[in-house]
Amino acid sequence: MNCIFGIDIGGTEIKIGKFHYDKLLLKTSIKTDVSDQGKRILADVFNKIDELSQGDNIVGIGVGVPGPVVKGVVNGCQNLGWGIVEAEAIIKERYPDARVRVLNDANVAAIGEMAAGSAQKYRDFVMVTLGTGIGGGIVINGEVYEGATGAGGEIGHIQILNAKQRRCNCGKFDCFEKYASATGLVTTALELMQGRETKLHDLEVSSKNIFDLAKTGDEVALAAVNQMVDVLAGTLGNIAAALNPEAFVIGGGVSKAGSFLLDKLVAKFREVAFYPVADTEFVLASLGNDAGIYGAAYVARK
Amino acid sequence: MNCIFGIDIGGTEIKIGKFHYDKLLLKTSIKTDVSDQGKRILADVFNKIDELSQGDNIVGIGVGVPGPVVKGVVNGCQNLGWGIVEAEAIIKERYPDARVRVLNDANVAAIGEMAAGSAQKYRDFVMVTLGTGIGGGIVINGEVYEGATGAGGEIGHIQILNAKQRRCNCGKFDCFEKYASATGLVTTALELMQGRETKLHDLEVSSKNIFDLAKTGDEVALAAVNQMVDVLAGTLGNIAAALNPEAFVIGGGVSKAGSFLLDKLVAKFREVAFYPVADTEFVLASLGNDAGIYGAAYVARK
Repeated sequence: MNCIFGIDIGGTEIKIGKFHYDKLLLKTSIKTDVSDQGKRILADVFNKIDELSQGDNIVGIGVGVPGPVVKGVVNGCQNLGWGIVEAEAIIKERYPDARVRVLNDANVAAIGEMAAGSAQKYRDFVMVTLGTGIGGGIVINGEVYEGATGAGGEIGHIQILNAKQRRCNCGKFDCFEKYASATGLVTTALELMQGRETKLHDLEVSSKNIFDLAKTGDEVALAAVNQMVDVLAGTLGNIAAALNPEAFVIGGGVSKAGSFLLDKLVAKFREVAFYPVADTEFVLASLGNDAGIYGAAYVARK
Repeated sequence: MNCIFGIDIGGTEIKIGKFHYDKLLLKTSIKTDVSDQGKRILADVFNKIDELSQGDNIVGIGVGVPGPVVKGVVNGCQNLGWGIVEAEAIIKERYPDARVRVLNDANVAAIGEMAAGSAQKYRDFVMVTLGTGIGGGIVINGEVYEGATGAGGEIGHIQILNAKQRRCNCGKFDCFEKYASATGLVTTALELMQGRETKLHDLEVSSKNIFDLAKTGDEVALAAVNQMVDVLAGTLGNIAAALNPEAFVIGGGVSKAGSFLLDKLVAKFREVAFYPVADTEFVLASLGNDAGIYGAAYVARK
């Protein structure tokens, strides 16, 4: 039987899916060994592939990595300890008969949603991953847009001009993700709750708790969510003015707030966006943590 | 002889170039007849093409129009009086043996710079046209990116969040072009010159005069240029974070300020942009008003 491996390498674990065409046969994960500049990571992956293939004919291997990638070459990957790694060539050398593709993890997640998730009807869309930070994947004509140096889709580092309040890890101030990620929402709530009555004083101030309280009408929690939505709608409106995608696909941990978040976001977006792009569609991502393996398998198949 | 026509339809005149492969043989222009919802525009173009072809074999016709275009269909064009016009099909019906392409004018201008101007070494770039407003053309893998509804590259309507000062014709506040176009620069200068000493009090406050005075060290003019450059660098930095192009190509009337503008812009961009994209290249457009006919001819040839 022909099989394809879809692999999503993260900083703590590596998810591996074995596919027959587009059907996921099994999935598993191994720990990411980041010691010694992560030099055993690919060998560990190869061992697991060999174990799982069980004599099946490996026709494709797709891999997502948490760093910039241009044409199969990883251009530095802090979470793995990698510098420049010619990952696609290394994998191809070990599996010469397989179609091999290596892409950025946010980009394969976007492709995963197109292949098997909620973006199946789109070919031009932007995936927005709202987690600790904000990641992005731009899909144009059904293909990942990597950018000139692999930084395509790094929308979390769009700067909110004229603000100058919150310093980002990237060294600049007021990046999008300092306001509209889970972390940004928490920062806003911590600012707003000073001296005001809110159930947040009795709870851990987490993104989930803020959303849960906002749903019950807690004024401070609601104000924090609304500020997040304002920045999210404004910035996605700006991305839409430049890129005019068919849709935004909203994923990541924060997207678990579901329709409460999405309804607010869509309403605000319709209000603030440039009129020719104000009808851009919005959907919630549906594959969660499996988007990467689906996307990786897809790019190795096409 | 085989020939190709590159045509750039504007609100007041239509530029027409006759090419042999990539060589411009002659160029001319006719008035744009916008009466009766511009219904004679294409017939006028056909008459001129027939007159200029002089028995040569017309193998391609490329056309740029000042409005959104998706797959050859013009989706409303205020300056021409057009609603939805299936321009590519109409031209194809009249010239069935020619390769016909109809695109947005900012997009064909971008392609023109790639075909024959200063963007010849790039395949992924953003053309930024600084004039009365700000236009944009996104080129990805050597092809125009039209966007889902033909609004791809409308970067002039990216909004500077948290400002709320200048209303734009689009109905929103604080669009990019309200600060960084020729008009935006004039608005800023008019604000800054109140009660301050500047030679601008003795001159027409135009973009050209502001730049000319800034070059001589006039403090108010220089402050206005610097504010423009701040917004320009910040916003192009944000576009680069999302799109990671190889280069920005700067055109339009304001770009006549030349290296005085470009040097300031590049220095500020390197300072403010997200580090993985801070080395994005910048060049001045070189074809001026001819970019459209070169680009239109190019897309009809490829």
